[in-house]
Amino acid sequence: MPIMNSKTGEVRKTYSVEELEKTAAEMRGYNMIALSCAGSGHSGGTMSAMDFTAALYLHEAKIDPENPRWPERDRIIWSSGHKAPNVYLGPAMAGAFDVKDIARLRKLGSPYQGHPHWLKFEWAEASTGSLGQGLSIGVGIALAARLDGAGYRTFVLCGDGEMQEGQIWEAAMSAGHYNLDNLCCLIDKNGLQIDGCVDDVMNIDPLAEKFASFGWNVLEIDGHNMGQIVEALEKARTLTGKPTVIIGDTIKGKGCCLMEDVCGWHGKAPSREEMDSALNDLGVSYLPVEEMFKISDDYQAKVEKELEDRQPKFKRDYWWNRGEGMDVDMKPTRKGFGKALEQKGDDERIVCLGADISGSITISQFHDSHPERSNRFLSMGIAEQNATAAAAGLAKEGKIAVFGTYGVFASGRNLDQLRTTVAYGGFNVLVAGAHGGVSVGPDGATHQALEDLYNICGIPEMNVVVPCDYEETRKATIALLFDIVGPKYIRFAREATPMVTDGNTPFVFGKANVIRLRKTDGRFAECFETVLAGEYKNEKEDLSIVACGPMVPEAMRAAWILKEDFGLETRVVNVHTVKPLDSESIVRAAAETGCIVTAEEHQAGGFGNIVAAAVLSAAENRLKAIPFGMIGVMDRFGESGAPWELVKEFCVSAEHIAKKAKALIDTK
Amino acid sequence: MPIMNSKTGEVRKTYSVEELEKTAAEMRGYNMIALSCAGSGHSGGTMSAMDFTAALYLHEAKIDPENPRWPERDRIIWSSGHKAPNVYLGPAMAGAFDVKDIARLRKLGSPYQGHPHWLKFEWAEASTGSLGQGLSIGVGIALAARLDGAGYRTFVLCGDGEMQEGQIWEAAMSAGHYNLDNLCCLIDKNGLQIDGCVDDVMNIDPLAEKFASFGWNVLEIDGHNMGQIVEALEKARTLTGKPTVIIGDTIKGKGCCLMEDVCGWHGKAPSREEMDSALNDLGVSYLPVEEMFKISDDYQAKVEKELEDRQPKFKRDYWWNRGEGMDVDMKPTRKGFGKALEQKGDDERIVCLGADISGSITISQFHDSHPERSNRFLSMGIAEQNATAAAAGLAKEGKIAVFGTYGVFASGRNLDQLRTTVAYGGFNVLVAGAHGGVSVGPDGATHQALEDLYNICGIPEMNVVVPCDYEETRKATIALLFDIVGPKYIRFAREATPMVTDGNTPFVFGKANVIRLRKTDGRFAECFETVLAGEYKNEKEDLSIVACGPMVPEAMRAAWILKEDFGLETRVVNVHTVKPLDSESIVRAAAETGCIVTAEEHQAGGFGNIVAAAVLSAAENRLKAIPFGMIGVMDRFGESGAPWELVKEFCVSAEHIAKKAKALIDTK
Repeated sequence: MPIMNSKTGEVRKTYSVEELEKTAAEMRGYNMIALSCAGSGHSGGTMSAMDFTAALYLHEAKIDPENPRWPERDRIIWSSGHKAPNVYLGPAMAGAFDVKDIARLRKLGSPYQGHPHWLKFEWAEASTGSLGQGLSIGVGIALAARLDGAGYRTFVLCGDGEMQEGQIWEAAMSAGHYNLDNLCCLIDKNGLQIDGCVDDVMNIDPLAEKFASFGWNVLEIDGHNMGQIVEALEKARTLTGKPTVIIGDTIKGKGCCLMEDVCGWHGKAPSREEMDSALNDLGVSYLPVEEMFKISDDYQAKVEKELEDRQPKFKRDYWWNRGEGMDVDMKPTRKGFGKALEQKGDDERIVCLGADISGSITISQFHDSHPERSNRFLSMGIAEQNATAAAAGLAKEGKIAVFGTYGVFASGRNLDQLRTTVAYGGFNVLVAGAHGGVSVGPDGATHQALEDLYNICGIPEMNVVVPCDYEETRKATIALLFDIVGPKYIRFAREATPMVTDGNTPFVFGKANVIRLRKTDGRFAECFETVLAGEYKNEKEDLSIVACGPMVPEAMRAAWILKEDFGLETRVVNVHTVKPLDSESIVRAAAETGCIVTAEEHQAGGFGNIVAAAVLSAAENRLKAIPFGMIGVMDRFGESGAPWELVKEFCVSAEHIAKKAKALIDTK
Repeated sequence: MPIMNSKTGEVRKTYSVEELEKTAAEMRGYNMIALSCAGSGHSGGTMSAMDFTAALYLHEAKIDPENPRWPERDRIIWSSGHKAPNVYLGPAMAGAFDVKDIARLRKLGSPYQGHPHWLKFEWAEASTGSLGQGLSIGVGIALAARLDGAGYRTFVLCGDGEMQEGQIWEAAMSAGHYNLDNLCCLIDKNGLQIDGCVDDVMNIDPLAEKFASFGWNVLEIDGHNMGQIVEALEKARTLTGKPTVIIGDTIKGKGCCLMEDVCGWHGKAPSREEMDSALNDLGVSYLPVEEMFKISDDYQAKVEKELEDRQPKFKRDYWWNRGEGMDVDMKPTRKGFGKALEQKGDDERIVCLGADISGSITISQFHDSHPERSNRFLSMGIAEQNATAAAAGLAKEGKIAVFGTYGVFASGRNLDQLRTTVAYGGFNVLVAGAHGGVSVGPDGATHQALEDLYNICGIPEMNVVVPCDYEETRKATIALLFDIVGPKYIRFAREATPMVTDGNTPFVFGKANVIRLRKTDGRFAECFETVLAGEYKNEKEDLSIVACGPMVPEAMRAAWILKEDFGLETRVVNVHTVKPLDSESIVRAAAETGCIVTAEEHQAGGFGNIVAAAVLSAAENRLKAIPFGMIGVMDRFGESGAPWELVKEFCVSAEHIAKKAKALIDTK
């Protein structure tokens, strides 16, 4: 089907194969510009899938660029949601809107989220990003079409890495079972995933035989030969009785010489120079680069101003490393995890399981500089369920099994496996929920773990640690590896966050620390004293801030604000071990300071509700009333944006803590 | 390998094919007796897998019955954990313990849990029951063996229904990837699953081609031909370079004429007469039936006495329908769900997705008596991830998609799909978490949803209802179907529980009810008055019990106990809508009665923490101290036992609520 006018039934535009090829080159160029404007994103796969994109939106699919929700339109689902630019570029090039607008890609409040959200971008048919789900959505849509007797077709675009997800095979089986010949899956088989070659990470071949055995028609083509693509799509339209999969052999980074078939370009955006070089390679240097950068910059400036205007205001600007004194070093907590594995990895019992983002979450540091440990690093691919249960099997045979991935997937995709196989079995498995909180930034809601504490803390007998900075993450990892035998979860963030502990700071699993501001004339961390809560002597402070993870530095900064602006003394309680909870220290803080604010980079309540229950259940507190408030994300999904923008957007900064604390104290 | 002596290296015993056949018949007989003693359990699959069981434990696997944790033993994992009797019978027949002891199957505190738990039964290599996880555990063990240079082999027994689980294909892919020739999977392909023929529920064929395409050696045999089984196992031992799967064609219920190939015998135990008939069919009527029933009865009596001794004591026995007056009718809440679907299913928008336990959770009532709706009932097999995301696809096209299964799987196995595809997408999908709480009984921990409220309530923008009885479940289902557009979850129980509402009882989504004991001389439900909390006039009661689900009737009974024994007046607040929470009514109850006990048939805190946070955060309550306590499961996994036994064992009965309430009030 060419591009249609849904009102008149007329054809708006047709594309020859040559025109499709030329337009695909331009789309690759726009993609490079948008990614460069964003400063992050997925270059490799967006480029490899671009010929499919052009052929689908401009030639095969029945769409009307002026009627995004036309009931008769063909449905296009991007199961590999990280190829979001393609989701935006297809309709734009078909004429739906000005393509230059995608310069706002991955920015706060933009319709062009890091992973597509159909409620923000009306051309997206689903919100995807958690791999392996799109084919199932397509099955549901295809079944609905059949129920309704509707003639539209459903296309699902998948990557090859996500073929490792079991859900793909559930969906494939059901599509075969229901003979869904109105469903067509396109696989962008570029042969690379984040951790390396698909063949090495977790071999998916022979892919054609797999789909055939699941009841599908299989067409194998060169995914960069536009003639073959068009022909395959046309053939798929005529095949009846079975769903059809078109497997396109492609080249990751296709069209940009420095990216082509180079591992490392999965989740990386081109610099300005690399972008220029790409446009040159593509022969599209004529694209409106400057205009798009201006759109990007103007929008970004507007976002930042609006955020700043909404921040609670105090006598001065207390933001990190602004103004004189109280400077702080920043380092990602995740690196403390990798460092611990690197330091302690000689222990032959330790076996690490990788889930294709091993470098990013730093689990690969276990063996990066230690090739002799490589046999104890097991690549499991994008298959969190299998990895989690396999970790239990390894633990059963005496290994200390360590599995890590994004917190969303490390606590959610595998929850039943974590609960039933790991925790119920009491197995010695350490699961790392990386990129917790909003700090994963522009990847957006699908990848922001804001609910994991609910899931994880709900599991009986689970041990849960949420360390506050790099050094505490390192110590916590070591403690969990060797001191705690059983199911255990560590949650840490992606972004660089303030270093507020050092080698001398106490860390005892299960015991909270009390942190007190002692001066304001030095480096930030040095102005605070930290002691084990059990050893702390009551100073009858005005309030307590009970925090975990990256909110501990924010709580400390709030203590500074409260002291400087209002003369209030704050007891910061760092509850790095969320389960088992150090209820005693929390209850003491409540009783002794008479006011509690909880702070979590998480849905408000995952941590705060536990603290509330501990405080309210304690007989000690029945003597007096306790003002209580929570800081956290207020029951909403994440968003794309820079990590520190999101801290402001979701109202989880020190300023928000301080404002809430002051309001509570005023009610005392 | 024959049965070994691990100390001497000598063979303890060998079995000929004929002896294996004879022993398998005896094992089937013991299985029938144990299931009959238990009064529940899985007849069909245990019988079909018995020849595999005999061949493995008595002939092929290297085991020493006197050394269950012999490091060199072969590992045997039962992925289909509902075939637990086989897990117990194999070692018993090999000489590990007296086989008659399995008469304690599925009873509280027994090592013979409804699904095997390796921490309670040392011959089990893993705790299974949530389908599709065992092959992954086997992959982990096989990888550990390779790392350790150990010579043992790993066997994984699977059913055919669980081939529908995506995790099986993740595991299969990884076993192929790592060329795990020390891993052997045996598939008991009996062709039936709960909802019907596997071919109809979700066709898994051609299974051999599937495994071959995932990199496995495939052997297909008659799973009841002992010669073929022995030969295939011996051949698998010699095959190198790949894992091997032995697909055995079997007959569900094999050996018992009335069960053979009859759908309906999946999760059903034989009556005494049916058992006698089975023993006769098998030619093993000489087995010690009476002796085993005595073991069963004696153990059961001991369990019941111990439970009764531990129950909190009051002036009289207030248990349901004991003593004079206050009688109550019992009906399973799940039936209210099915009834609503039956009543309202004519609405063409409603589409139900079944997950192979459709009858048990009553979702099949949607079309059981309405063949014209059959096209809107979509069987999705045992594939919760696919079903959940497909439901979103259906909802996207305007359907009201209803998906249900056990609460464990409806909120856990599919959590990432629920969160990212359904809830983030804002889709109009109703998920039913059936068999919530301990009331699933003898199936045990793997199947008892005690954590689902954590997972579900943590999802932003989710709507969550936990109705208190049959009638409220019916009303809630209708309200969720038609009044609430978006992601929604309903949690209900399996067992018959007291009917405490009727057609006239108010039910408004999002608004709690207040229930007050008004008299004690009539039928139980009639002695209470129920009004919308917003319309309730403060009576300055002594305390409030804030409850949801089946704990509402328990709370009401606690109110009766507290009145009769101590003259205390109780405000029972039925918070059927857990999200969004009716904070106002809860805060009012706290402020007006000055004492709160929460009650949930769930890990204590999933509901109670939310209530605690609401109470503590409310400015109204800062004027006075509020005694607060929680009733719920105390951070432990479930157990096998009769539903009402478990209510006592987990301390979630009215007696426990009343005891806690009295203790709190005494601190006021």
